[in-house]
Amino acid sequence: MPVTYTRRSSKTGLPPGTLVHLGRHVAEKATLTIVNYNEDTFRMNQTSSVEECFSLIDPAMITWINVDAVSDPKTVEAIGAHFGLHPLLLEDVMNTDQRPKMDDYQDHLYLVLKMLLINIDTRSPESDQVSFVLGRNYLITFLERPGDVFLPVAERLQIEKSRIRKNGPDYLLYTLVDIIVDNYFAIIDKGSEILEDLEVKVIEGVRPETLVEIQKRKRDFIFLRKSISPLRDALLSLERNGPELISPALMIFFRDIGDHCMRVIDGIETSREMLSGTLDIYLSSISNRLNEVMKVLTIISTIFMPLTFIAGVYGMNFKNMPEIEMHYGYYGCLVLMACVVIAMLVFFWKKKWF
Amino acid sequence: MPVTYTRRSSKTGLPPGTLVHLGRHVAEKATLTIVNYNEDTFRMNQTSSVEECFSLIDPAMITWINVDAVSDPKTVEAIGAHFGLHPLLLEDVMNTDQRPKMDDYQDHLYLVLKMLLINIDTRSPESDQVSFVLGRNYLITFLERPGDVFLPVAERLQIEKSRIRKNGPDYLLYTLVDIIVDNYFAIIDKGSEILEDLEVKVIEGVRPETLVEIQKRKRDFIFLRKSISPLRDALLSLERNGPELISPALMIFFRDIGDHCMRVIDGIETSREMLSGTLDIYLSSISNRLNEVMKVLTIISTIFMPLTFIAGVYGMNFKNMPEIEMHYGYYGCLVLMACVVIAMLVFFWKKKWF
Amino acid sequence: MPVTYTRRSSKTGLPPGTLVHLGRHVAEKATLTIVNYNEDTFRMNQTSSVEECFSLIDPAMITWINVDAVSDPKTVEAIGAHFGLHPLLLEDVMNTDQRPKMDDYQDHLYLVLKMLLINIDTRSPESDQVSFVLGRNYLITFLERPGDVFLPVAERLQIEKSRIRKNGPDYLLYTLVDIIVDNYFAIIDKGSEILEDLEVKVIEGVRPETLVEIQKRKRDFIFLRKSISPLRDALLSLERNGPELISPALMIFFRDIGDHCMRVIDGIETSREMLSGTLDIYLSSISNRLNEVMKVLTIISTIFMPLTFIAGVYGMNFKNMPEIEMHYGYYGCLVLMACVVIAMLVFFWKKKWF
Amino acid sequence: MPVTYTRRSSKTGLPPGTLVHLGRHVAEKATLTIVNYNEDTFRMNQTSSVEECFSLIDPAMITWINVDAVSDPKTVEAIGAHFGLHPLLLEDVMNTDQRPKMDDYQDHLYLVLKMLLINIDTRSPESDQVSFVLGRNYLITFLERPGDVFLPVAERLQIEKSRIRKNGPDYLLYTLVDIIVDNYFAIIDKGSEILEDLEVKVIEGVRPETLVEIQKRKRDFIFLRKSISPLRDALLSLERNGPELISPALMIFFRDIGDHCMRVIDGIETSREMLSGTLDIYLSSISNRLNEVMKVLTIISTIFMPLTFIAGVYGMNFKNMPEIEMHYGYYGCLVLMACVVIAMLVFFWKKKWF
Amino acid sequence: MPVTYTRRSSKTGLPPGTLVHLGRHVAEKATLTIVNYNEDTFRMNQTSSVEECFSLIDPAMITWINVDAVSDPKTVEAIGAHFGLHPLLLEDVMNTDQRPKMDDYQDHLYLVLKMLLINIDTRSPESDQVSFVLGRNYLITFLERPGDVFLPVAERLQIEKSRIRKNGPDYLLYTLVDIIVDNYFAIIDKGSEILEDLEVKVIEGVRPETLVEIQKRKRDFIFLRKSISPLRDALLSLERNGPELISPALMIFFRDIGDHCMRVIDGIETSREMLSGTLDIYLSSISNRLNEVMKVLTIISTIFMPLTFIAGVYGMNFKNMPEIEMHYGYYGCLVLMACVVIAMLVFFWKKKWF
Repeated sequence: MPVTYTRRSSKTGLPPGTLVHLGRHVAEKATLTIVNYNEDTFRMNQTSSVEECFSLIDPAMITWINVDAVSDPKTVEAIGAHFGLHPLLLEDVMNTDQRPKMDDYQDHLYLVLKMLLINIDTRSPESDQVSFVLGRNYLITFLERPGDVFLPVAERLQIEKSRIRKNGPDYLLYTLVDIIVDNYFAIIDKGSEILEDLEVKVIEGVRPETLVEIQKRKRDFIFLRKSISPLRDALLSLERNGPELISPALMIFFRDIGDHCMRVIDGIETSREMLSGTLDIYLSSISNRLNEVMKVLTIISTIFMPLTFIAGVYGMNFKNMPEIEMHYGYYGCLVLMACVVIAMLVFFWKKKWF
Repeated sequence: MPVTYTRRSSKTGLPPGTLVHLGRHVAEKATLTIVNYNEDTFRMNQTSSVEECFSLIDPAMITWINVDAVSDPKTVEAIGAHFGLHPLLLEDVMNTDQRPKMDDYQDHLYLVLKMLLINIDTRSPESDQVSFVLGRNYLITFLERPGDVFLPVAERLQIEKSRIRKNGPDYLLYTLVDIIVDNYFAIIDKGSEILEDLEVKVIEGVRPETLVEIQKRKRDFIFLRKSISPLRDALLSLERNGPELISPALMIFFRDIGDHCMRVIDGIETSREMLSGTLDIYLSSISNRLNEVMKVLTIISTIFMPLTFIAGVYGMNFKNMPEIEMHYGYYGCLVLMACVVIAMLVFFWKKKWF
Repeated sequence: MPVTYTRRSSKTGLPPGTLVHLGRHVAEKATLTIVNYNEDTFRMNQTSSVEECFSLIDPAMITWINVDAVSDPKTVEAIGAHFGLHPLLLEDVMNTDQRPKMDDYQDHLYLVLKMLLINIDTRSPESDQVSFVLGRNYLITFLERPGDVFLPVAERLQIEKSRIRKNGPDYLLYTLVDIIVDNYFAIIDKGSEILEDLEVKVIEGVRPETLVEIQKRKRDFIFLRKSISPLRDALLSLERNGPELISPALMIFFRDIGDHCMRVIDGIETSREMLSGTLDIYLSSISNRLNEVMKVLTIISTIFMPLTFIAGVYGMNFKNMPEIEMHYGYYGCLVLMACVVIAMLVFFWKKKWF
Repeated sequence: MPVTYTRRSSKTGLPPGTLVHLGRHVAEKATLTIVNYNEDTFRMNQTSSVEECFSLIDPAMITWINVDAVSDPKTVEAIGAHFGLHPLLLEDVMNTDQRPKMDDYQDHLYLVLKMLLINIDTRSPESDQVSFVLGRNYLITFLERPGDVFLPVAERLQIEKSRIRKNGPDYLLYTLVDIIVDNYFAIIDKGSEILEDLEVKVIEGVRPETLVEIQKRKRDFIFLRKSISPLRDALLSLERNGPELISPALMIFFRDIGDHCMRVIDGIETSREMLSGTLDIYLSSISNRLNEVMKVLTIISTIFMPLTFIAGVYGMNFKNMPEIEMHYGYYGCLVLMACVVIAMLVFFWKKKWF
Repeated sequence: MPVTYTRRSSKTGLPPGTLVHLGRHVAEKATLTIVNYNEDTFRMNQTSSVEECFSLIDPAMITWINVDAVSDPKTVEAIGAHFGLHPLLLEDVMNTDQRPKMDDYQDHLYLVLKMLLINIDTRSPESDQVSFVLGRNYLITFLERPGDVFLPVAERLQIEKSRIRKNGPDYLLYTLVDIIVDNYFAIIDKGSEILEDLEVKVIEGVRPETLVEIQKRKRDFIFLRKSISPLRDALLSLERNGPELISPALMIFFRDIGDHCMRVIDGIETSREMLSGTLDIYLSSISNRLNEVMKVLTIISTIFMPLTFIAGVYGMNFKNMPEIEMHYGYYGCLVLMACVVIAMLVFFWKKKWF
């Protein structure tokens, strides 16, 4: 199943801030995971009722709420109302076609980025949107569809006295973003692997499907760049503006993620340039192939045309043709033909056509 | 009817500020829609007389005037005089060939942008210019030709206690711009649909018309980028300069529109890169096609040239040709020819020419 | 007469500030037009004597001096001495190969730009340099060669109480620059017209001259961009630096000219991209053409080679060839040949070669 | 053995700051070289025990510790603990896939860059990561694998009263970076040498392997740019931020290295542009070659087709053919054939096909 | 003798600041020209002894020392010691492979740039490095090899009361730089002349050497851009930073040189774009040529194949062939052949192949 990277906007004309889910994945009901923790305590619950979720929040502790399917507007709206989130933020959460970006709403910080996976059938990357809302003592994460990407962090949170337990929700945010960005390396590794396969294919032979695949890979790399490149800018702006909600000591961690993004983008750019080289190989292979075909034709023509001509000459019906009468005329003629063939072969060999 | 994206400037030499309509759509008389509203009241009237329009303005309320055809200089001039608008602003309103931009004239703000439609005949995008003049308690909108694009907003305005009724004309401006920008997504969706059709066509076969269509689509995407990209810059400059007439709380809304523009521009860039890939497929298809033609020629020549030569040899008139006299000479010759054909077919099959 | 866009610099080694005319147009004597005006009075004189010119200046009024041929160093030098102009400025005035730019010499402002014309013979754009020196109550304009481009402004100046009479020399400067920039639109309209002709030519057929013309048009568009693009930068820097000599109220007018330049540059960029598309069409047309030629060759060969072979077979001289003896052998042979032709035609028709 | 420039990230999911070696070169045990020096004294020791190393540090002197294999997490961790280095810094030291960068951790400065070598087998560049940690009175260097690149500096350090002995660890840092950057020049010299070889190969003849090599060299230059270009940015940011640990008097030295980087990058860009020119030569050579092949075919066909036709005419069996009966008919026919050949040769000679 | 633009760096491993000459031109001994001048006096001497040179310096006057061969480390070192120049500056002076740049060492200013010449044999540009050291009342110039480029300035200096005599060493610096930059115009004029020759060659016919020359010219233009473009940046930074040693009144002169550089760079960019157009013409000419060759082949084949076939038919040996017996059969056959030829010619004429 090929993925189209554009979606239909069915929102034109609705008042801004209307919560309509625009995305591919539709789940009937969101599951909410609520984690309350501080240096000493750790508590984790799961529910599908927003009210229950709110009752589980312990204001004395740091709260992490993970919402694992954003297609349910009621849940999102209820969370928005409870935490006083901006309507545009909620709109962005539900429309899973955002560019990665960071918005600072003073008392909460909104970060949206893309989790990347390789579709096993098409070998193309796909993206799932992940939204983060960071408040003074809470972090809310919205996943486009249920998944266990944050499981290792949940486990690490259970370890007492770990660094993650000693720090605030900003460090938790960093840890989660770090996991997603680390995964980008696997994606581009896979991408350059696919590219090497493609290059081998192209060198081996020319088939029209290959060009279609080159075009497809090109689209994939554009998609990757589009998904990752704005995140780098968002992290840069974070560094420049230094929002209040993130402690200055953590800035170096976010800069580190920014560096990782940069390396990933470098990798994508390299792949794109290599892909365009692959296209050059493909196109020149077609021409080389044509050259080869033409050589065969030319060699055959150049050998047989003179021979046929000689045969034609001695097929003429002139009354007075002395060679015709000679006893060894036929054999002489065959020898002449052989000489012509040899001369031609020498000519082609000298031209390095073999 | 193909659209040309450049227009004749017949203004050279006239004093700056002379109001001459430069555009495609000419309506005899503009229709004015006047909306007065505040939190409690809503009143909407239509007229084609400017004087009547001015008498309908209620200074205690927020006024929205929509002028639906800018080809009538008298109306525009009268409105300019009444609201004290800058002559250059009025010139820009009437010349419907503006780049999207925002000009801050201290006591009023001018925003001009492009509404985009797909022409059903040519499947190419076309643009209508929309101008906004935002004053302290009024908003004037100028449409290039009559249309109902703002109808949903007019309807929403009638709902009491809605957010739009509680806010000033700056929020109304945002709502209207948002409608137009949301529509851009539909345009680029259509654009990438057309592109996919084109790609399929190119893969299916080579026809010279296809290249002309690629060129046409290229022009369309350039046109789209030219129509949308400066709006993004205008919104960025709005964010940086923070004009007095727009309340700071609304800035985040305009930034949101800016993000939408960015996504649209991303989409256009992707389409442009894919289009250039389509061109590569087209060009290489021509070469592939030539390869195929040449293979047919070469196969035919390579099979028949040796055969014709053999026939020629036994058509020679030498007196002394032993094969000629043999009883099964003819049949032997035919067998020889069959062997040559088989050898050639094996050769081509080994070269993978079939 | 083709235009070369580079000129020989014969100045190397001379002390900076030496006034040598470097340009194409040489007039023996400059004509000076002196206009003195204020809100109530207007006086215009023409002379070729610099001294007479200076005597005509009325310090109580605004003075506009137009020098219509800059190839005369003495006139330029005298004017420079009288108004205390910087030697580098005078050098720039006389060397008509400047990039458009704006230099602020505190007590006078120097603006140089290009007036563009289409050469009727070559259909290529050419440029004439126009220099403006704006002082506190004077404006001096230097034209590369005599022309009537400023005539409409001179006429407008005669209208009493017009805006131009009420304003200072900075507004006059704006009016003159506006005329020149408005004319750019006509130039790019012409340019895109020529481009459309070229595109039609390319689609109609392949001729080597067309490529040379594409190259020529490419040079034209580079030339246009080079002539206009720096003016936009100059106007931007004017906006940023806000020189004292231009009243802040006029800034919006100069920004308007900057917007016009931007639109012209957009137009040029579009044309350049379309031109490169035209080149693609041209190149692929060559390949298409080759395909067609090869198809004709292949069809002919594929039809006649088997026929000739069959004829060859029955031209062999074997003693024992039963078909030869048959009464309808000849006719059977002709029928066989017809079958081969039909089979081939069906083959090509199936391959969609017709 | 070809080098792949991407590596597998096996770290996803681990807590940030976990020290896992990600790199190609694995050494069992790191060797530590400890140099203590000041203006009067110089002492150098080697050990493989971290504890011994620490005991050798003389706090009254400047200390330089060189760790020559970073694949040993325990050593790196111990050093980090002893000097109070940031966990992210240690992570970067061990993951040898960093982009060159400079991080300022207030009480220590981290600089990472790439040492470049040419792999003799593949003639491609490879990189070794070198990390520098500059503290108030120490410098720690981490090499990816054992090597003697810093030997000349160690020797120079032994010279009493040399400039290097009189200055602090920041000057030592400069000296070491300078050695690595100076080596870049040798690499790009080698690169442009390889490029010239390639160009000669391409001009001499067309072989499909050449295109694969062009692609490989393209990858090499991308790799070089990626390894060097960020260092320039790091040095620029150093100049802008002026970290406390580097004395202002040394800034000019680091700027000098920045200039060297710039020259190297210029060289790489030039090589890349030349490489793309080489590709053009290659592609056009294929076409030229095809032209040549086709000329041979056309010449042969054009000469022999008319001859064969003439022979065919006089091979016809019409009863009434006067030429057949003529005594010199045969010789006349041969002369006719010779004339045709000569005419054809003249035609080709005039077309400059020879 | 072709020029390679990269040089071997044999300095790796030496302590920074070691003076080793890295360049092409080696002179045994430098000649020093010492000029002392002020408004009233002018004195000029030549010597090859540094000591003599120093004794000739008059501290009450402005001193200009010209060193005309930098391959002699001792002279350079002595001058550096005498004027207290920075070691890195001296290193840059001797390594004649610098990018143009400006370094401000507080009490002296260092400017290095490239003097350009056209090598008459290769018609390629070559560069000579010129270094300027500007102090409070002295200017030192270092030439890569002896030359008389500064002669006109020396002569101008002898003119009493000239502007150059009235100003400080900064004005002298400006005058010298101006001479070098003015010469760039001659170089690019020559360059575009060579380009026009090349274009004519390409249009006239296709020869493989032409492509090699295009590649060579491409390298030349890259070399030119590399030599000039950084100078523009250096002059821009000079304008921004306003070093103390250059009087503010002179800034406008240096900005003027910057404008000249900009024009030269514009010219180079234009030439580069035209060159790529020339490449397009070349490549399409190859294709056109192939088209022509194929047309000849196709016309010949299409005319002679049917004729040969007809001749073959009447060469068959069937017993019963009525046409054979007819008295005018032979002539009828010839008429048939003529008809075929005429039909074919009409076909080709209609296809516009002639």
